[in-house]
Amino acid sequence: MKPSIPKGTRDFGPQEMARRNYIFDTIRSVFKTYGFSPIETPSMELLSTLMGKYGEEGDKLLFKVLNSGDYLRGVDKQLVEDDNYVKLTSQISEKGLRYDLTVPFARFVVQHRNELQMPFKRYQIQPVWRADRPQKGRYREFYQCDADVVGSDSLLNEVELLQMIDEVFRRLGVRITIKLNNRKVLAGIAELIGAPELLTDITVAIDKIDKIGLEAVNEELRSRGLSQEAIDRLNPILALNGTIDERLKALRAIMADTPTGLKGVEELAEVVDATRQLGLDAELDLDVSLARGLNYYTGTIIEVKARDVEIGSISGGGRYDNLTGVFGLPGLSGVGISFGADRIYDVLNALDLYPKDTQVTTQVMMVNFGREESLGAMKTMKELRKAGVSCEIYPEAAKMKKQMGRADALGIPYVAMIGSEELAKGVVKLKNMATGEQHELTINQAIEVVKENS
Amino acid sequence: MKPSIPKGTRDFGPQEMARRNYIFDTIRSVFKTYGFSPIETPSMELLSTLMGKYGEEGDKLLFKVLNSGDYLRGVDKQLVEDDNYVKLTSQISEKGLRYDLTVPFARFVVQHRNELQMPFKRYQIQPVWRADRPQKGRYREFYQCDADVVGSDSLLNEVELLQMIDEVFRRLGVRITIKLNNRKVLAGIAELIGAPELLTDITVAIDKIDKIGLEAVNEELRSRGLSQEAIDRLNPILALNGTIDERLKALRAIMADTPTGLKGVEELAEVVDATRQLGLDAELDLDVSLARGLNYYTGTIIEVKARDVEIGSISGGGRYDNLTGVFGLPGLSGVGISFGADRIYDVLNALDLYPKDTQVTTQVMMVNFGREESLGAMKTMKELRKAGVSCEIYPEAAKMKKQMGRADALGIPYVAMIGSEELAKGVVKLKNMATGEQHELTINQAIEVVKENS
Repeated sequence: MKPSIPKGTRDFGPQEMARRNYIFDTIRSVFKTYGFSPIETPSMELLSTLMGKYGEEGDKLLFKVLNSGDYLRGVDKQLVEDDNYVKLTSQISEKGLRYDLTVPFARFVVQHRNELQMPFKRYQIQPVWRADRPQKGRYREFYQCDADVVGSDSLLNEVELLQMIDEVFRRLGVRITIKLNNRKVLAGIAELIGAPELLTDITVAIDKIDKIGLEAVNEELRSRGLSQEAIDRLNPILALNGTIDERLKALRAIMADTPTGLKGVEELAEVVDATRQLGLDAELDLDVSLARGLNYYTGTIIEVKARDVEIGSISGGGRYDNLTGVFGLPGLSGVGISFGADRIYDVLNALDLYPKDTQVTTQVMMVNFGREESLGAMKTMKELRKAGVSCEIYPEAAKMKKQMGRADALGIPYVAMIGSEELAKGVVKLKNMATGEQHELTINQAIEVVKENS
Repeated sequence: MKPSIPKGTRDFGPQEMARRNYIFDTIRSVFKTYGFSPIETPSMELLSTLMGKYGEEGDKLLFKVLNSGDYLRGVDKQLVEDDNYVKLTSQISEKGLRYDLTVPFARFVVQHRNELQMPFKRYQIQPVWRADRPQKGRYREFYQCDADVVGSDSLLNEVELLQMIDEVFRRLGVRITIKLNNRKVLAGIAELIGAPELLTDITVAIDKIDKIGLEAVNEELRSRGLSQEAIDRLNPILALNGTIDERLKALRAIMADTPTGLKGVEELAEVVDATRQLGLDAELDLDVSLARGLNYYTGTIIEVKARDVEIGSISGGGRYDNLTGVFGLPGLSGVGISFGADRIYDVLNALDLYPKDTQVTTQVMMVNFGREESLGAMKTMKELRKAGVSCEIYPEAAKMKKQMGRADALGIPYVAMIGSEELAKGVVKLKNMATGEQHELTINQAIEVVKENS
């Protein structure tokens, strides 16, 4: 009976941790320099907070936590007879694991509104859980890294968020394309083709254009009740080409009669213009088929693709005008982005983009020559550590070959030897494991050598 | 219907996060310089991994996660009729939330034994969940910070762990007492008083001596079946006094006829001697009543108390000789310590020990004077951020008073103004919010001023 872990979950060993922390630290550092403050919310939320926020499918994918103690007390047993597990769940479970960071954030803002200074800029890096069928690259526990601004309608926030995306991937060395759209453009399109009530259906369908192609999208639109005439009016919009400016110009003409659509185009133009003036490493693109399947977006929609790896979006976000309304605080606009740490990890692995020193091990291992010498070595370690050098001592006075074998296996760059002779002289023999070179050094010299080379 | 969170859980806002991160960063940094590598395990473990590891009470305190989908399928409905919720649980739930970091670590070691280099030194900083009754200072979700070494019997590990405890609290500025005991001494005591089979009862009872006093402990021992003669032989041991060396000497004499007890005394003496030679800020103490209620300790037992605040132990640990045996890998010795982040947080708050700069906000806020000026300000921010200065811009061109009000409320130390005049001259007006002083500076000068003062 070899122990195992729940399917769709993972253990992270030291090397994976070093790589993941490199990604998290990079994102966190950018969030901070852009003036975002960290918050954390509980892993468990009340199901009343979570249910109904992610659609019917989302409700099913929530991990629900069984009430403590005798959860059967007071339960309607007929529900069990009827196999009505959905209704039974509401009687035996009142808590669920967080499904994303957005809904808990909305709940946080409403609950703490009197303590928060608006606009409130927060970031949050925590795991989320989804009872999705596990598959390659899809896990039941994974991290999200979100940054949001609430309480400001200004498009400057969008511009800042785009700068942050650019900066994160510039630091990570990943070449990206940032795709932009605006929900108001989508609404304008629905209006233009005479089917505003079909907005959701239209966005869900055209969101798939990259995956399934124009023909299949048209087929789906037809099955959702769109007339051939409407489809004929939609297709040229989806087929727009040329530079961003040419497409914005064409869109402006197309949207001339729909104020909502026009507003969307103007917002896009403003965000693009300001972003260009500030400069961007990323490629910027306009994609009127971009909807991100998320119905709560009301303005700007952002999606980020890696240019050198075939993989889904690695970051995305947008503006939502009424996120906190569902918790009783209407009229608060928010805009945010989210980085998918797991996919970014896959991208960095595929492109081998980790800095050389990401695999962090102990910098120095002390050889153990016996009780007296090891105490001397530990005194030396105290000085190394004070200087910020990480070190360890082989815990037993084992054969030299065995001790060196550990340093080799772990890739520890330096081995230090303090035998009785070195102890008497107050020096250390420092061996560079890569070159095999070995020198007798004072402790300060040894610290200098180790710090210079790592 | 104001939204809320499950009882016993907490939201952490920006200020609490800054303080908590200060604690976590300090602990993590010490773990690293002592050569420990990070790992992370899933929040959910299989109940087969968790159940039976924490005693009957622990099994009850596990948060259990309802199986996904139709969890009633195949369930024995008679269990519901019989109100047998314990047995029903095993049919509708196969996963639980992690209760501590030790059992998941043992599972990790067994599962990955072929990839690990022994001795394996890992640290782990993650939340754990317990369905305890919430009360002041006790939460249902809280962080543990553990460092363990497995695969080495050497007492050097204990000595290193004590150095780590000393270093963490030295850095945090908390004066502590480290109490030591050894489980073999407790076993020796049980043997001496002729009741080795009562070891567990004896340790559970005498562990309470600080809380309930000697008389009540004797009463409890009596009720657990210990004879008056045995109690009379036990009491002088519990009443040992004098210096550590005097007490070790007395114990050595008392334990002369029990090899196990004597071995415990020798181990204690060795750990104390080596620790003293290396030097320690903490006060060291010997406490033969210390058992920590944890039956899996087999050697050294460590407990840390804050000297200037009345609060339970803030760190502790010990050696366990067969932690992985339950998962099918016998004979692997481990020793570890755990820091209680929540109690340490309470101690630092009580003693006001946070460094001045722990409340991290944006360092500079740019005033927004309108579209053109704000684009200029954002270009300047790009340079500030490149230099590592965190900054933000007020997102709307609101009244000056409102904009300054935000900087005030958030405690942002500098406000920068770039109007059309400054834009033309390529300078920035930098206002120190604490002194009210205001200077016209080049961007590089402004960066220098901000970095010097934070």
